[in-house]
Order: sequence, then structure tokens, then C-alpha cells
Amino acid sequence: MSIQKTVTVDLGERSYDIVIGPGVLAQAGERIKAISPGARCAIVTDANVNAAHGEALRASLDAVGIEHSTLEVEPGEQTKCMAVFEHVVGGLLDARLERRDLVLALGGGVVGDLAGFAASVTRRGMDFVQIPTSLLAQVDSSVGGKTGINAPQGKNLIGAFHQPRLVLADTDVLKTLSPREFRAGYAEVAKYGLIDRPDFFEWLERNRQKVFAFGPELVEAVAVSCQSKADVVARDELEGGLRALLNLGHTFGHALESATRYDGSRLVHGEGVAIGMALAHRFSNRLNLCSMDDVNRVEAHLRVAGLPVTIGEIPGDLPGPEKLLDYIAQDKKVSRGKLTFILTKGVGQSYIARDVPSSEVLQFLKEVT
Amino acid sequence: MSIQKTVTVDLGERSYDIVIGPGVLAQAGERIKAISPGARCAIVTDANVNAAHGEALRASLDAVGIEHSTLEVEPGEQTKCMAVFEHVVGGLLDARLERRDLVLALGGGVVGDLAGFAASVTRRGMDFVQIPTSLLAQVDSSVGGKTGINAPQGKNLIGAFHQPRLVLADTDVLKTLSPREFRAGYAEVAKYGLIDRPDFFEWLERNRQKVFAFGPELVEAVAVSCQSKADVVARDELEGGLRALLNLGHTFGHALESATRYDGSRLVHGEGVAIGMALAHRFSNRLNLCSMDDVNRVEAHLRVAGLPVTIGEIPGDLPGPEKLLDYIAQDKKVSRGKLTFILTKGVGQSYIARDVPSSEVLQFLKEVT
Repeated sequence: MSIQKTVTVDLGERSYDIVIGPGVLAQAGERIKAISPGARCAIVTDANVNAAHGEALRASLDAVGIEHSTLEVEPGEQTKCMAVFEHVVGGLLDARLERRDLVLALGGGVVGDLAGFAASVTRRGMDFVQIPTSLLAQVDSSVGGKTGINAPQGKNLIGAFHQPRLVLADTDVLKTLSPREFRAGYAEVAKYGLIDRPDFFEWLERNRQKVFAFGPELVEAVAVSCQSKADVVARDELEGGLRALLNLGHTFGHALESATRYDGSRLVHGEGVAIGMALAHRFSNRLNLCSMDDVNRVEAHLRVAGLPVTIGEIPGDLPGPEKLLDYIAQDKKVSRGKLTFILTKGVGQSYIARDVPSSEVLQFLKEVT
Repeated sequence: MSIQKTVTVDLGERSYDIVIGPGVLAQAGERIKAISPGARCAIVTDANVNAAHGEALRASLDAVGIEHSTLEVEPGEQTKCMAVFEHVVGGLLDARLERRDLVLALGGGVVGDLAGFAASVTRRGMDFVQIPTSLLAQVDSSVGGKTGINAPQGKNLIGAFHQPRLVLADTDVLKTLSPREFRAGYAEVAKYGLIDRPDFFEWLERNRQKVFAFGPELVEAVAVSCQSKADVVARDELEGGLRALLNLGHTFGHALESATRYDGSRLVHGEGVAIGMALAHRFSNRLNLCSMDDVNRVEAHLRVAGLPVTIGEIPGDLPGPEKLLDYIAQDKKVSRGKLTFILTKGVGQSYIARDVPSSEVLQFLKEVT
């Protein structure tokens, strides 16, 4: 158990711990009892995760006498919608849970975003615990309090900032992921190195294989990722500025996800982010900000991790540069009409550029599509 | 214009002004431009209020060049539901409003609660301005950041704490209210005196007629009410404790509203609160906390304002004491099964009693039904 690591997200009264490592799921009951003695729990999970890990969580709650019920939703992105949201909120109310009772979000990013948002509005705000079961959720979506659902107008357009009371990231659980899912999550791990931790990126270059082999290096990689995100969130909880750095690779990535209509058989989020990060470095190079050596180094590392780095690697037809630019402009990271991009001066030297001319972006897209 | 008063809700970075008095609506454009230069606006309002005051607001926005659109909803409590909420959020997204653009809630409590909640979750939190057009909304629901909708399981069970950027309370607008609506709002005005401002209650006893005649005393009464609420909210934004004082009269009142199935032809919210406040004093007297003189004084003042003070004044059949107790226990102001009541030691001396035995409440209900 000594391999477990704890990262604290420092948000004053709303501070919370992220506990990372093997065996964390089995400790859920005692850890939850410690933060909320007497609270009852509603587990929100999807059918697949429930089958794989639901019993382990319930056994852990039973062992310390915590009352619980389970709300199961369908797996998949389409679950992050208003209808399922209403169903989950209704389930929490039917269970007569009170504000200080707990919603336990057991699953990947979809379940975490949905259950966290449901918790945030039920009785104007219930407590909740994130128990992320995908690498993507462990290093990204479960940390920082962003919750929400999709709207017909776009992804994640309806939601709330609602911090969990605790995050339990059991790295053993990641062994049940498909290799493609694991790789996609790894793109977000690499992202933290590329944002502002060049030493971590170097460490990943040396230790990638051990991370993928579920060694203690995986716990280290998740912990550094969570610490990186926690540092940014602590300085900018409500995404006023700095937090935009976490969108490195996401502006291009989201446009590509839109262009493939979020068809996971063609492109999953982490793959979009991988291509987006490669493009962000290449675009920065075109703007004479970043060396070609850095572009090549980033692409090489993502490639060797099994991730795509060019638009051409996405199977099937894609819209042209003009349409891709339109998707970028529709992204919510537009402030009063100006395009905001995360650009970089090299590995680990990203920064927020608030008024990138769309003509430059279009020219670049014409070169890379 | 010198008759206008401004009350500041002191919440650090989220502080905001409540501007109260005649002519405030016509100043909306310039006041909004001052707090959010460059922002676009979506007016959320109901058909009745839109017909009465929509043009005045739009003219004021046009005069200073603020872009705006209007989303009209049906009048009435049934509008505070998930379907209309989804419609409003969709309308805000369709209008491509950004986080720093503004939702203007023009209407009574229903519109304010609905539009404020929609603003709170659209793009994870848009700015909004309350422009309350009922006395109830001006002195209560528009101040303090509670927003939300009703669930099949109960009222206001889904929502958020989301503070407005500004509250514009035009007292001239109240002239379009029905006398019954005005009286019902007055119950909440009297409440602030009864909670902890005995001097204000005395002032109301002397000045009630001038308040009802739309004299400058109305501006004073609204301003003191808003200041009272602002003081409580500043000390307990998220309803951890002290804010419960604002529920004086509401525990009995909500139970009576439930018992009449929220049929406004039988009982409107402010009438339920009036009866609830009278009962809270009477119950406190039964518990030897408050003198019979105080009970009589409270009842006399509410009566002379045209408000009901006994359960018997509600037209139609009502359920018996046991069922009423059940409604009280279902209220969300139950903490881990104990009944929380606002009791009083006399006019202006209310306090939070966290473990009132339900047997005492039942006994009391048997006496007064």
C-alpha cells in the first residue's frame, strides 16, 4: 500500500484529496466514512463499470456500514444528455438523499461529468466523490470540479463548477481498459509535460513502457498529472484565465471530434488531443515560436505511445480547412469573437494566445489537411 | 430620482448592488452597460410581464446600444420545470451568448428562479441581472442567489446558488400587481421585522398604509427588506446555518402550500408564509418561548394588511394534522431526520431550533386545525 500517493487540491474550504494507487477502491468505504460520517451514498455508474467494479465498491461500503443505492446509466457519450441528467437527479431525490449525503461517481469521464453535475444541482448542491475508472478520468476530468452534459449546440455547454469532496483513483482498475482507451488517456498525461513540465515530459520519454506495463511508474505518472492539474485549478478555479492552458491540443482536437461527429470508432477524445497537441506545436513552429526539433520530439513520443499525430491518420472523409475553422470558431473557448489558442515556445513552454488571427489558422489548416 | 436607494450585498468578489425605487427600469440600459460594457443580453420573461414592461426594458437597452433578444415563457409556477428550463438554456445557446454576456430575468419569482438557474449552468455559468417585478421577488427571491426549478418530488429541489451581478427593483412596476399579489409580498416584508428587526416591525405598524399607497415608504420598506436579507446572505451564502432564519413561517407555510397542492386560487406563497409566521409565534407561545401579547400583535398586523393568519381561513378541505406533519417532514429543511423550526422569543427575536420533537409539532397542529 505504500505505493499509494495523495495529491491535495488546494481550494481553501473546498480543498480535497486525490488518492492514487493500487487498492484504493477497496478502501473507499473507510475513506468516505472518514470525510462524511453518517452520510448515505448513491452510486452513479454505467452498466459496464458496474459489472466490473460495482460489487467491489459496494462491498467496501458495506464493510463499514454505509447505506447505499445504485443508479445505473447506459455507457457512452450519449448518456451526457438532458434526459439522463433528469433521470439521475430524479433518482437522487427519490432516494431522499440530503445535501450532506454523497453521490459516488464510479466510471469514466461521462459518468463523472454527469453525476457531478447532477450532484451540483440536487437540493442546490450535494456532496460527491469521484471514483474515476479510466486513465483519462483519473488524470483529467475527475480533478478540478468541471461537471456537465452536452447540448444539441455542442459538448459540455451545460454544467457547473462543483468540486468533489474526494477523488479515489485506483490504478489497478485501469487494467480493465482496452489498450486504445489507455493510450487515449495517456495523451492527457503527456499534455501536462508539454504545458509546463519539461522534466516530466523527459521522464515520460524514459519511462513510457513501464507506465504502460502498470508498474509503480503508472502511479507516479497519474500523481504528477493530478498535481499538475491541481496546481492550475488552485490558481484559477473558475477558468478566468490560466486554466485555459489545460486546453493545449484541445482547440484543434475538439474541431476534429466535431468533424467526425464524435464517432468513437474514428476518433476518441484522447486521440483528438494527441493530434491537436502535435498540430499546436507545428502551428507554433509556423509562427516561428517553436523549433522543428521540438515538433519532431513531441510527434515521436506520441507516435511511439501508439497515438495519431496527423489529421490524415483519421479514417474516413473529413471536411475541408474552412469547415474545420468554423468548428474551431464555434468552440466555447472563443472570447468576444477572438480565437484563443494555446501556443508553445517548445516542450513545456506553452502559453495562452488570446487573439490569434483566423486567417493564420486557416492558412495552417490548408497546409496540414 | 433622489428617492432611489441602493443596498449592497457584500460577498467579496461576487458583491452586487440592489437599486430600488421609481424609474429604475428606465435606467436599466445605462446601469447594465456600466457593469458589463460590451455584453449582449437575453431577456427572459413571461408573457404577462413582457406585455407590461418588456418594451420599457428594451427601449432602455436600445438607448445605450446594447444588443438583446427576448425569450418568453408562460406565466405561472408550472413554468419552473425541467422542460422549460431546457428550453431556456437552449435559447441562450442558440443566441450564441458567451459567459460574460448577460441573462436579464424580468419578472416575478418564477422567472427569476428559472432564468437565474439557466444562467448558472449555461456554459457553466453566465452572468445575470435580476429585474424583479413583484413585491415578493423584490424583497426576497431576487436577492441572495438562490435559483432553481421544481421537481416532481417537491418545490425548488433542483437548482444552484448563483449570485446576480445586479438587481434592479423598480417600485413603480409594483403598481401593476393585483392587490392580493401585493399583500402576499408584504408578508415577506413583515417577516424581516419579525426575524430580528423589532424596530422595523414597529415602523411597519405605523407606516403600512403609506407602503400600500406606493409612497416613498414603499421604497424604504423594500430597501430595509433587501438590506435584511443581504446581511443574512453575506454571513451565510450557501445556507450552512444562519440563512435558515429566512425560513421563519416557511415550514408551516410550505406544508400548507403542499396540502393545497400549490393551488394559487386557494393559497399563494405569501399567504402561506403569513399563516406560517402566525403559527410559528403561536407554537413558540405553546412552548413558553413567546408571550401571547406578541402572538396577538403579529396576527393583528398581518390581518390589517389583509393577510390570513389561521389555517381555517384557507378555503376548501385540508388534510388532518398527521398528514400536515408528514408534509413538514418532507420539506428539505430536514437535517438527518430532525425537524428544524424557526422559533421566536417575541417580535424580532427569532432563532433556529434544530431538534424540535415531531410529537410537539403534532400536538400543536391538532390544536390549530
